[in-house]
Amino acid sequence: MGFTATSVTSLGATPPLVSFNVARGSSSWPSLEKAEYVALHTLGLNNLELANRMAADHTKRFEPADWSLDARGIPVLHGVTSVLILKIRQIVEVESNAVVICDVVEGFVGTEQSPLLYHQRSYVTVDKLA
Amino acid sequence: MGFTATSVTSLGATPPLVSFNVARGSSSWPSLEKAEYVALHTLGLNNLELANRMAADHTKRFEPADWSLDARGIPVLHGVTSVLILKIRQIVEVESNAVVICDVVEGFVGTEQSPLLYHQRSYVTVDKLA
Repeated sequence: MGFTATSVTSLGATPPLVSFNVARGSSSWPSLEKAEYVALHTLGLNNLELANRMAADHTKRFEPADWSLDARGIPVLHGVTSVLILKIRQIVEVESNAVVICDVVEGFVGTEQSPLLYHQRSYVTVDKLA
Repeated sequence: MGFTATSVTSLGATPPLVSFNVARGSSSWPSLEKAEYVALHTLGLNNLELANRMAADHTKRFEPADWSLDARGIPVLHGVTSVLILKIRQIVEVESNAVVICDVVEGFVGTEQSPLLYHQRSYVTVDKLA
């Protein structure tokens, strides 16, 4: 399963930790709750079509050519800007949501591109200040 | 006290919740750990000077003209894009860091501006895709 997490944030560098938030009513929650590892992908401008697909119907998010299994058997998407392999350390349930706290166990840098951001219901990229 | 939080994320809408991450070694931690309320400000392009000050020497972050006290006695900065008054609900300590989970108790919308983002060690704004 895969989903678009707009809430991923660093939680520390030594050891490397990240957290993200998710609704426990989401279609991904039953899988996530039982998972040991998660592959976190950051997307660039070239990944706009993938980004749109990952945010749409959850039964149509993965195309066979998009991904392959890594050494741990975790599906990793191709052509993204980076991949972090996360091991879930702790899940904090808050109302109908959860904060998922993870150790970063491995990282891969992919193709360098402008970042893909989501702002006011559409995808944008960054613009340097004068 | 004030600090720049790049990690603020929504944790749910009903009830409205946000979380942010902070290093427990930071200069703000002793105050934050004891606080009941926090004022969360989002900054726009017009707030660049304030943003730079808030990320620098922690003894020089507040100028008298920058802020006033709200009805709860919480310092609120002027001229920002929005302010959320947060009540700290739970603090989850993880290694030398913490996830701070808050209820949103009140919100104010300020002046509309392009958002101020931090990317590759400098401030940027958004650029619409063609």
